[in-house]
Amino acid sequence: MQDSTNSVTATDWLDTIRWNDDGLVPAIAQDADTGDILMMAWMNRESLELTAREQQAIYWSRSRGKLWRKGESSGHEQRVREIRLDCDEDVILLKVEQRGGIACHTGRRSCFYRVLEDGQWVATDPVLKDSDSIYGTGGHSHE
Amino acid sequence: MQDSTNSVTATDWLDTIRWNDDGLVPAIAQDADTGDILMMAWMNRESLELTAREQQAIYWSRSRGKLWRKGESSGHEQRVREIRLDCDEDVILLKVEQRGGIACHTGRRSCFYRVLEDGQWVATDPVLKDSDSIYGTGGHSHE
Repeated sequence: MQDSTNSVTATDWLDTIRWNDDGLVPAIAQDADTGDILMMAWMNRESLELTAREQQAIYWSRSRGKLWRKGESSGHEQRVREIRLDCDEDVILLKVEQRGGIACHTGRRSCFYRVLEDGQWVATDPVLKDSDSIYGTGGHSHE
Repeated sequence: MQDSTNSVTATDWLDTIRWNDDGLVPAIAQDADTGDILMMAWMNRESLELTAREQQAIYWSRSRGKLWRKGESSGHEQRVREIRLDCDEDVILLKVEQRGGIACHTGRRSCFYRVLEDGQWVATDPVLKDSDSIYGTGGHSHE
């Protein structure tokens, strides 16, 4: 936990962000070493503040309506090395170290594993670990 | 223009995408050579179809409510080398060749030029060309 002085500072940088009508902002996770784009998810104010404080990616799950600590069930945590903001102040970029080398719930390195080829989406990137081994056979496919 | 056979194919891959309530999807532009993330903007169905057809990034400007051919006033076009889709089918990734090496309306390479340091957003990336030279002194700062 931070002391009160740091908490005041934290509020300032969070106020810069232009949250959407749902109080959210898109956050892109990029592999800090390879430059690969791993995923895009959403953050609310609390999740971004926690992400900065803990230096671990913590998103807001829109489907479940709660904080989503990336890796909480998969073990595929994202250690945050850098947090960036775009010129319009409405998109966040995280440079992360991806634990296990897998960001996607399908067991692939990146969620962007499909490429448009001749009018069709083609899955080009390999599954590194099957979903059952990540979440267990009775588990959910998304964290 | 495409013939009717190709148009049918085009509709199929566009139907895969889960557009939001406004009929839009976020599109991340990544430099195909360096891996740098250049910007994130929004696309509607028409802009994505045109992007695929012309192999040039064409976004949907939410502020102006119309198609936004990237580079139409700045000259900083984005030639599209690859179009990717994420596992949730609600985010697009474009791998592009950035003309002029400048994606941001501030004259910087990337829109993500601010880094969070000690509770403050710090502009760390240099301005390569001032905004007046890009758009003209009477021009608008955004395309």
